[in-house]
Amino acid sequence: MTLKVGVLGYRFMGKAHANAMARLPMFFPDAPDVERHVLVGRDESALEDAADRLGFAETSTDWEEVVGDVDAFYNLGPNFVHAEPSVAALDAGIPVLCEKPLAATLDDAERMADAAESAGVPTATAFNYRFIPAIRYAKGLIDDGTLGEIRHFRGRYLQDWLVDPDAPWSWRNDEELAGSGALGDLGAHTVDLARFLVGDVERVSGHLETFVDERPVPGEDETRPVTVDDAYSAQAELEGGVMGTFEASRFATGHKNDHTIEIHGSEGSLKFSLERLNELEVLRGDDRGYETVLVTDESDPYIEHWWPPGHVIGWEHTFVHENYEFLSAVDSGEEYHPNFADGLAVQKVLDAIERSDERGEWVGVE
Amino acid sequence: MTLKVGVLGYRFMGKAHANAMARLPMFFPDAPDVERHVLVGRDESALEDAADRLGFAETSTDWEEVVGDVDAFYNLGPNFVHAEPSVAALDAGIPVLCEKPLAATLDDAERMADAAESAGVPTATAFNYRFIPAIRYAKGLIDDGTLGEIRHFRGRYLQDWLVDPDAPWSWRNDEELAGSGALGDLGAHTVDLARFLVGDVERVSGHLETFVDERPVPGEDETRPVTVDDAYSAQAELEGGVMGTFEASRFATGHKNDHTIEIHGSEGSLKFSLERLNELEVLRGDDRGYETVLVTDESDPYIEHWWPPGHVIGWEHTFVHENYEFLSAVDSGEEYHPNFADGLAVQKVLDAIERSDERGEWVGVE
Amino acid sequence: MTLKVGVLGYRFMGKAHANAMARLPMFFPDAPDVERHVLVGRDESALEDAADRLGFAETSTDWEEVVGDVDAFYNLGPNFVHAEPSVAALDAGIPVLCEKPLAATLDDAERMADAAESAGVPTATAFNYRFIPAIRYAKGLIDDGTLGEIRHFRGRYLQDWLVDPDAPWSWRNDEELAGSGALGDLGAHTVDLARFLVGDVERVSGHLETFVDERPVPGEDETRPVTVDDAYSAQAELEGGVMGTFEASRFATGHKNDHTIEIHGSEGSLKFSLERLNELEVLRGDDRGYETVLVTDESDPYIEHWWPPGHVIGWEHTFVHENYEFLSAVDSGEEYHPNFADGLAVQKVLDAIERSDERGEWVGVE
Amino acid sequence: MTLKVGVLGYRFMGKAHANAMARLPMFFPDAPDVERHVLVGRDESALEDAADRLGFAETSTDWEEVVGDVDAFYNLGPNFVHAEPSVAALDAGIPVLCEKPLAATLDDAERMADAAESAGVPTATAFNYRFIPAIRYAKGLIDDGTLGEIRHFRGRYLQDWLVDPDAPWSWRNDEELAGSGALGDLGAHTVDLARFLVGDVERVSGHLETFVDERPVPGEDETRPVTVDDAYSAQAELEGGVMGTFEASRFATGHKNDHTIEIHGSEGSLKFSLERLNELEVLRGDDRGYETVLVTDESDPYIEHWWPPGHVIGWEHTFVHENYEFLSAVDSGEEYHPNFADGLAVQKVLDAIERSDERGEWVGVE
Repeated sequence: MTLKVGVLGYRFMGKAHANAMARLPMFFPDAPDVERHVLVGRDESALEDAADRLGFAETSTDWEEVVGDVDAFYNLGPNFVHAEPSVAALDAGIPVLCEKPLAATLDDAERMADAAESAGVPTATAFNYRFIPAIRYAKGLIDDGTLGEIRHFRGRYLQDWLVDPDAPWSWRNDEELAGSGALGDLGAHTVDLARFLVGDVERVSGHLETFVDERPVPGEDETRPVTVDDAYSAQAELEGGVMGTFEASRFATGHKNDHTIEIHGSEGSLKFSLERLNELEVLRGDDRGYETVLVTDESDPYIEHWWPPGHVIGWEHTFVHENYEFLSAVDSGEEYHPNFADGLAVQKVLDAIERSDERGEWVGVE
Repeated sequence: MTLKVGVLGYRFMGKAHANAMARLPMFFPDAPDVERHVLVGRDESALEDAADRLGFAETSTDWEEVVGDVDAFYNLGPNFVHAEPSVAALDAGIPVLCEKPLAATLDDAERMADAAESAGVPTATAFNYRFIPAIRYAKGLIDDGTLGEIRHFRGRYLQDWLVDPDAPWSWRNDEELAGSGALGDLGAHTVDLARFLVGDVERVSGHLETFVDERPVPGEDETRPVTVDDAYSAQAELEGGVMGTFEASRFATGHKNDHTIEIHGSEGSLKFSLERLNELEVLRGDDRGYETVLVTDESDPYIEHWWPPGHVIGWEHTFVHENYEFLSAVDSGEEYHPNFADGLAVQKVLDAIERSDERGEWVGVE
Repeated sequence: MTLKVGVLGYRFMGKAHANAMARLPMFFPDAPDVERHVLVGRDESALEDAADRLGFAETSTDWEEVVGDVDAFYNLGPNFVHAEPSVAALDAGIPVLCEKPLAATLDDAERMADAAESAGVPTATAFNYRFIPAIRYAKGLIDDGTLGEIRHFRGRYLQDWLVDPDAPWSWRNDEELAGSGALGDLGAHTVDLARFLVGDVERVSGHLETFVDERPVPGEDETRPVTVDDAYSAQAELEGGVMGTFEASRFATGHKNDHTIEIHGSEGSLKFSLERLNELEVLRGDDRGYETVLVTDESDPYIEHWWPPGHVIGWEHTFVHENYEFLSAVDSGEEYHPNFADGLAVQKVLDAIERSDERGEWVGVE
Repeated sequence: MTLKVGVLGYRFMGKAHANAMARLPMFFPDAPDVERHVLVGRDESALEDAADRLGFAETSTDWEEVVGDVDAFYNLGPNFVHAEPSVAALDAGIPVLCEKPLAATLDDAERMADAAESAGVPTATAFNYRFIPAIRYAKGLIDDGTLGEIRHFRGRYLQDWLVDPDAPWSWRNDEELAGSGALGDLGAHTVDLARFLVGDVERVSGHLETFVDERPVPGEDETRPVTVDDAYSAQAELEGGVMGTFEASRFATGHKNDHTIEIHGSEGSLKFSLERLNELEVLRGDDRGYETVLVTDESDPYIEHWWPPGHVIGWEHTFVHENYEFLSAVDSGEEYHPNFADGLAVQKVLDAIERSDERGEWVGVE
């Protein structure tokens, strides 16, 4: 059987997922057969072009027609569009993959998780960084006790595309449309990796800042207010008394996509950086320093599907792994993680960070 | 018009080029249309499987039937198979891409370059590292004078898959089949980058070593002699008085695919490492140290086809760029480099290094 | 005139400062002449040995006899001994250098700063990292506007000497004797560099953890409770709306003395690591990545006194610079920083971090 | 008994050794007592100043008066002054430490080694990099078999102080006065470390280049010819069939004092860089990458004399270790290495490299 996939959104994420699906047959021969069935968008002409280039059989400007008519629905639209189509698809019993953060508001995220629970089909919140071989390898080291009892988790996601005060306004700067700024867009990834690698976040103290209050609207002679954070930081206590610190910024001059994770346990430590995603710095047992492991050996997660040792993979490969796992789950009906419940768990942390910042005090999660 | 491509070889390189062709429509929409037409090999059953997975329409066990019946012929077989099919294709007027080194012997390489010259069609020696964005960016810095007058070129290619004396014998250990060992397999890349970035090699002094003289034959109760080098080093004088040092080894414990290039000019320096191929270390003018440039900006070579800044690409992308350029040249009839003449030029340097080692003296190239 | 210096404390810090004074004549010929006059301690025999090795003319077991009888008094004892002798010396009009943190309690620190204010003589809180050439160079880049408007300050000080739950109890684990743990010992340095490089800390949110509650007493068959933090983190708002995050741990497995500082401004960024203290990573203006500056040029702060470019200095050199500056101020009567007022300002931040942790809310500094 | 030391030379090396001797009592209490007895030079006024600052009791402008009247003689003059005073001292039975390279010519080096042999007293060729803790630690890893059978040694020493064609002429650019250029000044260190760590050099192929043929004489309206190499490279075969490559340049733009060593053995590899001299990159056994070892633990060579883990030392400390070992040998009469025989062995390699370059062929050493 071939899975027909419907995809809402044809820009950055649309391309990333279309490419991922296109590459499965050659590299993951045991993946289910997939048809890029229908691409959904509003601008008909751009949509046609995109469908042609991304290899979709059909297009539609009405997601309502689509959600019930596919074997899996991918919601890759802006955050404020996450809830309604996803819930509609789930209500029709269709598995859904939704980009992160799960929703623009905690209420929406809860609605989506409830719908997923009721539907009983696989769902995915698209935290693709869980599927980096180095991160999987790190998880193995933690799960098998190599790092001992974890004490510290440190996550930091730095970009710089808003440093210029004249950088244009977009939906990402608007609370209604995006929910939050660096917090939801970047921090969601960090919090998900904290949960994946170490455990649940129990309480947080947050700090949000907006450095530039309004930005020019492209093509118009006006500015619009920035109603989300340009940067956030947070302190956290994770289960088991682990100390966590999270931080993200769109004002970190010179950093493009610099997501770093550092973990210290009683028996070892590790460091990861997204811009060098083939590597993991590992210190274990009696090591005297970090060992730079190139996670490209045949025995490393997902690597046997690709190239020989030392032949590095790129950012896009995380989407191939993610699509492989999700579509396999859709095909088999088995459980998949990170699902909507995981997405909701992250959203609760993001929400707690925002409330903590407003109240000036620590806030429990849940 | 759709270009029908015939490919000899379906293992490592077959997969790399098939993948490259498969990705062109989505990422390089102005590339010619390409059909993976026929896959050539000897083992019928393995061949069928491979053709299926790699997306070829047909298979053949006889390259002679194929070479005249395609729009481009890819020769991805072992070195000793490079000459005959490539020359046959060229004699039929068909453009040929051949893996590196161009041939197992200088004689063969000369025959191939002659055939290319006579045919007057585009040819490629598959030095894919010329198509790394960071290497292209480096070439720009040299060509526009940013580094000033070049004084030093240093190239080193380290692997470790033969460190174990019980690692199995393969065609790569046999002079008849491979021509040479680390020298031809790895050194060919280094010499090509020296020529691409700095200029022709005029004279060399070489040193070859074989650390393990015989190796077990897989599945047999015998060993076979190793008749090629396990490692080589060379000193060189390049045009303009540039000092060069080249080195490669299959005995560099812990190194998987570590090809590094360092260049010093009167106005600046640069460093590149294949295992971090998205980065270039650049020092220019009054800089006080190397700047780690992440070569993933939209303005960087080939990057606008891929992802936003900081979203790194992998090793395989070099093949996409290479196939894009070669197939575009096939389509348009325009000149392509590195062609068979470039492959021959490299072969002459490799040959001079071997002769220098035998004679214990410097040897002029040509 | 030769300055007679009295020093309380002859262990780690005693050695560091004695060495610093000993090296002035050869490397800083314009420094005042200094006599290591008297070394103060309790254990007479150990004291004699130390005085002999560290080059002191006399010893004393009674600081009260010493403080009025020297030209400068160095208080290098444990934190709980900082206040009384320092205040006594100041009351006698004698300049005082005191190790960091200034005191074990905010009250003591205030008494000391008041005494300094009344005495009107130079005082020093021994934040030696202000005297690292790379840090001075960083300050120059910030002060001259090279980094633009500062947005982020990130400071992290990682050690691992308490990871082992059987590591012995010492005064550093006792609140009465030390005031706090990682916070005062390590965090004090971070906060001082934040003030030195960026500006005052206005409000904080703190988080302290003690991972191991009691530790064995060396040579005794009992344990004693750990009443200070093993690790802390803090979020801060600095003047001008700069976001700050601070963190330190004695449980960061594999890290020995790893103090890192990162700063992002609207025009540039920088990174510093104490274990590579000769280097500063600098990104400015249109740079595309961090430049690794080896801060060992003749034109770099303090370097003309030492060695040619590329001949690196060590950790101990920071004490030579510090002693040079402080003793020159003692000699000339000119102002010196960081003085007791600076030490008090840091102590207020440390105190606010502790109170914030206790209260679970942000706390204003002052 | 106090050893009276006479020192010829009061500039860079004079300061380095005077400092080293001055620091022994505080940090190496078991070292012999040393008096910086007499400083020898030609310019009386500069000499007086230097002696005052460097702590010498007396001065002399006549080395002949000095060499017989001290307990040890340090020859820190330019290369062409190495032979005569050293031989005179040895003929008087006085131990001698001489800066590297041992002499400007092989003949002189042989005379010096002969004199040392006859005298039967400790001698030192001042290859101070043998006394870096990380290098000693590396030697331990090799000697105890951790790296297995050594296959490759790679040494590279890069500086850039002659890149500017207007950089002034000095004795270092003159064959009569210096013997050779980058080869003797920098290459001597590399060859010594190859011998120390791996073994004797048996045959070499050399390449020398002079990029700028004449240079301005400071304060005069003329240029003088450059008669030494600006850069060299060499290939070598070391005992046991180890492949070696050596290289040095004064034209490596951006590199100040960048001496790197890389070694690959059948069981492990290591990397060292002088500008990060507290670190050693080590890969052993089943490690998957290099471990960055900070060689500052109490158990590391020489470190217990200095500071706690993570408190890095500098370039100058290598001289303290060297003086400690040499003066202890002078005091005890025990053997010391690297002595004049070691210096001669290096000189033979340098000489062979030069002859190889002239002849265009490999040259055996000895």
